[in-house]
Amino acid sequence: MSEKLNIGFIGLGNLGTPIAMNLLESGNKILVYNRSIQKTIPLKEKGALVAKDPAELAAQCDIVFSIVSDDAAIRSLCEGQGGLIQHLKKKSIHVSMSTILPETAELLAKAHEEKEQYYLAAPVFGRPEAAVQKKLNFAISGQPEIRKKVEPILKQAGAFAVWDFGDSIRAANTIKLCGNYLIAAAINAIGESISLANSSGINATQMWSMLGQTLFNAPVYQNYSKIILEKKFEPASFTAKLGLKDLNLVLHQANSVNQPMPLAELVRENMQILVDTGRQDMDWSAIGLLSK
Amino acid sequence: MSEKLNIGFIGLGNLGTPIAMNLLESGNKILVYNRSIQKTIPLKEKGALVAKDPAELAAQCDIVFSIVSDDAAIRSLCEGQGGLIQHLKKKSIHVSMSTILPETAELLAKAHEEKEQYYLAAPVFGRPEAAVQKKLNFAISGQPEIRKKVEPILKQAGAFAVWDFGDSIRAANTIKLCGNYLIAAAINAIGESISLANSSGINATQMWSMLGQTLFNAPVYQNYSKIILEKKFEPASFTAKLGLKDLNLVLHQANSVNQPMPLAELVRENMQILVDTGRQDMDWSAIGLLSK
Repeated sequence: MSEKLNIGFIGLGNLGTPIAMNLLESGNKILVYNRSIQKTIPLKEKGALVAKDPAELAAQCDIVFSIVSDDAAIRSLCEGQGGLIQHLKKKSIHVSMSTILPETAELLAKAHEEKEQYYLAAPVFGRPEAAVQKKLNFAISGQPEIRKKVEPILKQAGAFAVWDFGDSIRAANTIKLCGNYLIAAAINAIGESISLANSSGINATQMWSMLGQTLFNAPVYQNYSKIILEKKFEPASFTAKLGLKDLNLVLHQANSVNQPMPLAELVRENMQILVDTGRQDMDWSAIGLLSK
Repeated sequence: MSEKLNIGFIGLGNLGTPIAMNLLESGNKILVYNRSIQKTIPLKEKGALVAKDPAELAAQCDIVFSIVSDDAAIRSLCEGQGGLIQHLKKKSIHVSMSTILPETAELLAKAHEEKEQYYLAAPVFGRPEAAVQKKLNFAISGQPEIRKKVEPILKQAGAFAVWDFGDSIRAANTIKLCGNYLIAAAINAIGESISLANSSGINATQMWSMLGQTLFNAPVYQNYSKIILEKKFEPASFTAKLGLKDLNLVLHQANSVNQPMPLAELVRENMQILVDTGRQDMDWSAIGLLSK
């Protein structure tokens, strides 16, 4: 990309902040916005400009990245008088990285389209430390020319890889929901295995040293077994509250296509218990505590 | 090991056959026994001797490997008038590779000990093709000098690695049960993710190409997602019937130490449904079919 773009970034949470920082450190001019202004300070100190509201940001940018907590937050950001859709210029692009329902992605894509703007579904896999290390994985879907245009900017944003799932705007978010469900099921099972080993008087750390080097030599198992073994649930990289939100989305999507998912139901119930017992701000892998 | 041992091998199933073949091809003299004599033919053709019963085999061997289907089979092999315990020589070693309860391992170890024989718990992780490729993982526990003596023979038997879990005879089998539970939970979740993708009109093969290269780049996920996507459940490498047996052992163990495992309960129920609906001989990863 030789063209110089004005980049906007909305949502400076645990994951948003290092992604915005990556974009900034790649030499881009960036305008940021966050509901709580305090979180804009680290970016401002590195040279980012700070917008007073999404409308101001939208009016000045060719491409706007957003990463917010849920479907309600993204809709409130996009819709209404002060929303992105009202204020983005024609031909500008909204790269939406939040984990939301496929149907919300579709609804927003249509609304942007009506204003001759573009919407790219670009949910992201990776914990905050992966963002810092530029090891994120983005799943993208949407219009072909927009996918092509945004891909190199996602590399700057910290992508290890950008996975292209084609034209259907719903595809990327469906895959993100499947991925988060699979992680949640894995951490629940890891937790139960550790509880069984402990209760049986077996060294669970030694057991996971073997499993993490053999059958389950994948980052999800290696990282989470470590967190659960050490009970390092705070500070959370991904809270139980967010985990529950995502599992609710998985089951909403399953319900909308009449797909039974009994295992997902149970994992969702377990995550609900975690939240209901005051552990909503712990890392979601604390789900493994339940069975002890 | 410079010492030349007479090796016995009992149980020529899907996994036993390639392991016995590895021992034979490593230059050992081997005496085999299997309940159905037909399965001894491939070994006999390669030079193995065939015993008419476990008693005859036991009397002639310094070390006996066994891999049979369940706790009842190993007890029937060891106990009683024609059993290994009655007929093994003093100082001989029984290397027990079956997936059985930790309490059964302990019971058999004691019975061997009373006759001045040794019992090593050596359950094995790996599908038959991994045995052929010498990529098995053995978890071992038992007396230190026996672990040391058997380890090099397990390398010949097809070990990628031998994982030493110390003196407690119960350790290795507990870890094997945890491992099989984790695999079962993973294949159940993989199945549900593929069903959700299919029902949502998403290309599940493309989704698993990404997941298998990123978050879930472990053999369990790569191999089983492929089997489930292609619905190649027959011939089975590991049947639903055996999977159900193992999940029952996991819950038996959990119950014996008062450990709740709600996720394991559900996976067990799902495997039971598979068996009860006539799919007991399919690969256990057909559990992923249930949700569609």
